[in-house]
Amino acid sequence: MNGLSDRFPVVVRQLRQAHGWSQERLAEKANLNRSYVGEIERGIACPSLITADKLARALEVDLSALVARCERG
Amino acid sequence: MNGLSDRFPVVVRQLRQAHGWSQERLAEKANLNRSYVGEIERGIACPSLITADKLARALEVDLSALVARCERG
Repeated sequence: MNGLSDRFPVVVRQLRQAHGWSQERLAEKANLNRSYVGEIERGIACPSLITADKLARALEVDLSALVARCERG
Repeated sequence: MNGLSDRFPVVVRQLRQAHGWSQERLAEKANLNRSYVGEIERGIACPSLITADKLARALEVDLSALVARCERG
């Protein structure tokens, strides 16, 4: 897998936990299915650009900032 | 559609044309199907985060920079 697919799950989890939210809470905020958020965080599911943007907005960051954090490794 | 899904096709096309490349050339560089690149540029297909990263790399920009350009509108 490339850097982004390795890092994206980790960064989403870090941002979620920094908010003190459960996966369920994040899924609710992002209007996504709870089990899908779990799959994304376990690196099983690779979101579309639009879904990644929904997650970023729910986590209160720009998608570009979230991706940049993945790129920095 | 949200800003990103409207802007991403436009920005990919702008960057491709700035390189003077055909869709076929971009598809080749990104290791993607030519018709799929056409669908992305027409806003018909929404790429995964990984495919968007492949396009950004082929266009010689970081995905975070490409997304930021979409966010600036």
